[in-house]
Amino acid sequence: MRLTFLAFSIAAVAIFWVAPAELAAARTDTASEIRIVLQSQQGAWNRGDIPTFLEGYWKSPELTFSGSGGIVRGYDGVLDRYLKSYPNRQAMGELQFSGLEIRMEGPDAALVLGKWHLKRSNGDVGGVFTLVFERFTVGWRIIHDHTSAQKEAP
Amino acid sequence: MRLTFLAFSIAAVAIFWVAPAELAAARTDTASEIRIVLQSQQGAWNRGDIPTFLEGYWKSPELTFSGSGGIVRGYDGVLDRYLKSYPNRQAMGELQFSGLEIRMEGPDAALVLGKWHLKRSNGDVGGVFTLVFERFTVGWRIIHDHTSAQKEAP
Repeated sequence: MRLTFLAFSIAAVAIFWVAPAELAAARTDTASEIRIVLQSQQGAWNRGDIPTFLEGYWKSPELTFSGSGGIVRGYDGVLDRYLKSYPNRQAMGELQFSGLEIRMEGPDAALVLGKWHLKRSNGDVGGVFTLVFERFTVGWRIIHDHTSAQKEAP
Repeated sequence: MRLTFLAFSIAAVAIFWVAPAELAAARTDTASEIRIVLQSQQGAWNRGDIPTFLEGYWKSPELTFSGSGGIVRGYDGVLDRYLKSYPNRQAMGELQFSGLEIRMEGPDAALVLGKWHLKRSNGDVGGVFTLVFERFTVGWRIIHDHTSAQKEAP
C-alpha cells in the first residue's frame, strides 16, 4: 500500500505542478500570438483587404460584435458590417492599433484592451476596443469585439 | 507494478472526470450568481445609490472601464466617472438591464453581454455593454466593463 500511495502522490504532483518559468513562457507565447493576429489584421486593413482582416475573428455564427449599432452576430454579419461601414479605401483610411493590454482569463481565454485610430483624408476617427480571444486548434481568434469611438473633447 | 498502475489510473480518472450534470449545475449557479450581482446593481442605481452600485465591480486599482471617454482605471476612477456623469437622480433616471448573455471563459471567468436603458424625464439613453466577470472569494465581480451608447436610428 505504501508503494501505491507514493505512486499516487508522485502522479498528483506531476499533474498539478507547473514550473513557474514554463507558465511565464506560455503567457509570453500567448501574448506574442495575439499580437501577431492583431498585426496581421492591421496589415490586411491597410492593404484594403477586409476579408483577410476578418480572419482574426472566430469563423462562427456565435461571433459577436458590440458597438454603437448594438450587437452584430456571426462571422458573416460582422463581415457585412465592416463592408458597409467602410465601403472604400478613403473610408478605411490607415489603421493603427496601440496601447495593447493582454490579460489571461484562463488557459484558453484572454481579454485584450487597446486603442484604434484611423488616419483619413476626410477626418481621423478613433477610440477604444475590448476583445475576448479564445484559443482554437487554428490559433487565437476574437470571439467577441466591443469597439467604440472616442467622443471629441469639448 | 500492476497495482501501482491501477492506483494511478483510478486517481487520474478521479481527478479529470467531472459528471456532466455537476458541470451543468455549476454553470447554472454561476449564471444565477452573476444575474444577482447585476440585479443588485440595478436596484442600487434605482435608489440613487452609486457607491452600492459600484459594489458589483472588482475593488482594485486594476479595474478598467472602456467607453467613449477612453479607458478609466481603478475602482476609485470608475466611481468618480459615475459620480461626475450622473450627478443627480434626474441624470441617473431609471436603469433597466436586458438581454443578458452569459458565457463561461474558464472556471473563474465569464463574458457577459447585455443592453442598458435609462428612462429619464430629460430624454432616454441606452446601448450595449460587455462585462468580464471573475470569481473571487467574495463572489463574482466585474473586472472590466465596456459600455457604449446606441446611435440614434437615422
